[in-house]
Amino acid sequence: MKPFALKIALENVRAQVPLVHCITNYVTVNDCANALLACGGSPIMSDEPADVEDITSICGGLVLNIGTLNEHTIAGMHKAAAQATKLGHPIVLDPVGAGASMLRTSTAAALLDTYDIAVIRGNMSEMKALAGSASATRGVDVNPEDAVTEDSLEASAAFAKSLAEKTGAVVAITGAIDVVANATRAFAIRNGSPLMGKITGAGCMLSCIVAAYVVANPEAPLEAVVAAIAGEGLCGQVAAARMTHEDGNGSFRTYLLDALYNISGEALERGALVQEL
Amino acid sequence: MKPFALKIALENVRAQVPLVHCITNYVTVNDCANALLACGGSPIMSDEPADVEDITSICGGLVLNIGTLNEHTIAGMHKAAAQATKLGHPIVLDPVGAGASMLRTSTAAALLDTYDIAVIRGNMSEMKALAGSASATRGVDVNPEDAVTEDSLEASAAFAKSLAEKTGAVVAITGAIDVVANATRAFAIRNGSPLMGKITGAGCMLSCIVAAYVVANPEAPLEAVVAAIAGEGLCGQVAAARMTHEDGNGSFRTYLLDALYNISGEALERGALVQEL
Amino acid sequence: MKPFALKIALENVRAQVPLVHCITNYVTVNDCANALLACGGSPIMSDEPADVEDITSICGGLVLNIGTLNEHTIAGMHKAAAQATKLGHPIVLDPVGAGASMLRTSTAAALLDTYDIAVIRGNMSEMKALAGSASATRGVDVNPEDAVTEDSLEASAAFAKSLAEKTGAVVAITGAIDVVANATRAFAIRNGSPLMGKITGAGCMLSCIVAAYVVANPEAPLEAVVAAIAGEGLCGQVAAARMTHEDGNGSFRTYLLDALYNISGEALERGALVQEL
Repeated sequence: MKPFALKIALENVRAQVPLVHCITNYVTVNDCANALLACGGSPIMSDEPADVEDITSICGGLVLNIGTLNEHTIAGMHKAAAQATKLGHPIVLDPVGAGASMLRTSTAAALLDTYDIAVIRGNMSEMKALAGSASATRGVDVNPEDAVTEDSLEASAAFAKSLAEKTGAVVAITGAIDVVANATRAFAIRNGSPLMGKITGAGCMLSCIVAAYVVANPEAPLEAVVAAIAGEGLCGQVAAARMTHEDGNGSFRTYLLDALYNISGEALERGALVQEL
Repeated sequence: MKPFALKIALENVRAQVPLVHCITNYVTVNDCANALLACGGSPIMSDEPADVEDITSICGGLVLNIGTLNEHTIAGMHKAAAQATKLGHPIVLDPVGAGASMLRTSTAAALLDTYDIAVIRGNMSEMKALAGSASATRGVDVNPEDAVTEDSLEASAAFAKSLAEKTGAVVAITGAIDVVANATRAFAIRNGSPLMGKITGAGCMLSCIVAAYVVANPEAPLEAVVAAIAGEGLCGQVAAARMTHEDGNGSFRTYLLDALYNISGEALERGALVQEL
Repeated sequence: MKPFALKIALENVRAQVPLVHCITNYVTVNDCANALLACGGSPIMSDEPADVEDITSICGGLVLNIGTLNEHTIAGMHKAAAQATKLGHPIVLDPVGAGASMLRTSTAAALLDTYDIAVIRGNMSEMKALAGSASATRGVDVNPEDAVTEDSLEASAAFAKSLAEKTGAVVAITGAIDVVANATRAFAIRNGSPLMGKITGAGCMLSCIVAAYVVANPEAPLEAVVAAIAGEGLCGQVAAARMTHEDGNGSFRTYLLDALYNISGEALERGALVQEL
């Protein structure tokens, strides 16, 4: 990905400590906050409609994660997104479980249609639901039929580019192989560990980290998203390598945060498995 | 517990990866999600009334945990429970703090009276509150006077059987000794560690695991509940054995998840301390 | 701090197991519950207006943390605080992010003006916002200009005493140096580790621990707050000393809970860096 180095993207986050406003589900919110701190950002959570405009105004970016929606937080998302759009703050949309319920699909679609979304990050089933071509989803996990494989990689990249063109957002489809695209370029990322699917929140954390990277690298949003995703995947590998036979998903979760905290720009450059398609 | 082996109950969970819809408190929800993943299930959380029918429909079972009720989530519980009842999905009720407030007691009672509850899991004070014979409770912990001991074991089993007969549910009263019963049979389980009371969420996690076991073992709900409870208790023992002099409840929580992740069917058979009463 | 020993304050908590009602944000609520258990207390969370009066009545103290306010929980805070005031239970106010939004500032101010608040614990930016002399805040972190340093220590102590006099509360301003004061006495505490700022929740957990200490030491609230704060700081040092080169904020969080769980009264006496100003 030269000339824009992944290392620089990471170092910009650590140098700038971007403040990220998160309206996110209550399942993984603690992990999201600690992941933002680990990567070098700073989190603030607020979902009350009467609070979100003030909070988003002092931040650099906004994450909208629809994991545990309720009517009150939906109203908060709209107010925050309107304010962030007005201020030119990047918004990351995480359509958790889109396709699994009408409310989730329609809320994600409404946010995407109404505001200036910088990045959409989800699994392929969620992305298909957003694009109006949903297959049946399996809750918050990808439908195995939708999973990005080496065989479906080209078609997935074309789908990502097309969704990026339609929405104006960088599209990040994560899975065993991650695909990141804007309207004209697409990348495959082959970092990560299957253990990331054995903890709750790997995706939610990633959306928050993506926001920190995009805020700190305003001139290179596509590269920033690639750096954030390759970085978390690499940290998943580091965490997996630390596992003993007694360790399980409890320890893996701790090790993943630890790796996010310790990863250097050099290690990211060395370990990132990024391929332009 | 032959001929139905605990091992089979566990292996059915790992093979089927049951999707469990949890409407649960925001204190321990992250632990619940990771515990479900650790035991071999898959969690999805949703409490918004406009979302829960769709979500519960794609799941195999439902957990209703009243730990941090609000009027919105109560409405969500009723909608979800009605849909789960209609679809024949097993519902696990965790009456956290029943007896500690009018709202908790009446909400738990209303859910129990209205829907087809497959399992009730709580401590003895909560169960007595549900049965309308509450002594004073001590918040979310059992009142020491209510605790199941060797001396009160027979009376506790009779109480459990009677509550099971009245409600049609499998009744699981957990504590230093656990008692599990349907209308005709009762078991005592002597696994576990006192450290499980030094972390928040051991009970909440157990209710979610119980749901995964009941979903994956539809023909043997009583045995499934026994397997889930003996299993978590045994994992508590494994976690306790891993503690160093520097470790405290932070590490214990991690070790408990790790043990849930790693326990095999053979280890469960070998270590389970189950006695039919 | 003789003749009232910090050791006694700690041992009173462990002996009495104070039950603390927490209305707190959903970001760090799990850490708050585990921190209360670690220090020797017992947590119960409830924010529904229809539930809080019953719950607070069975507890010894109340924590009001405004980290993720919504209109429903604000109503819950008022009902709980009114009941706690009526029953003479100590209330700890944690004004998370006061100054960062109108809603937070006005809610914290209203709670402080209306009820009998025993302790206010926050960073200097939040405290200035409460005192009506806010500089710009940086989300939930202290504005670097506000940070208590050796140079600003005397002025900070004077500010704390004056806020304590105005409000009747013990004022605890935490940061690199902590300042604790009532209207007539002030203390500086120099325990702690910079890593405490790299996890979410160190402040929220502290407010809950403070509540447990104040409940268990009703005749010495100022000393109880000092003991709680020096204790958490010392535990931060213990946790930091345990870090390996692979560890990051994930492990630090676990180690901090572990240290809170294991700290003895003797270790607190030996390690506390408390100076009367």
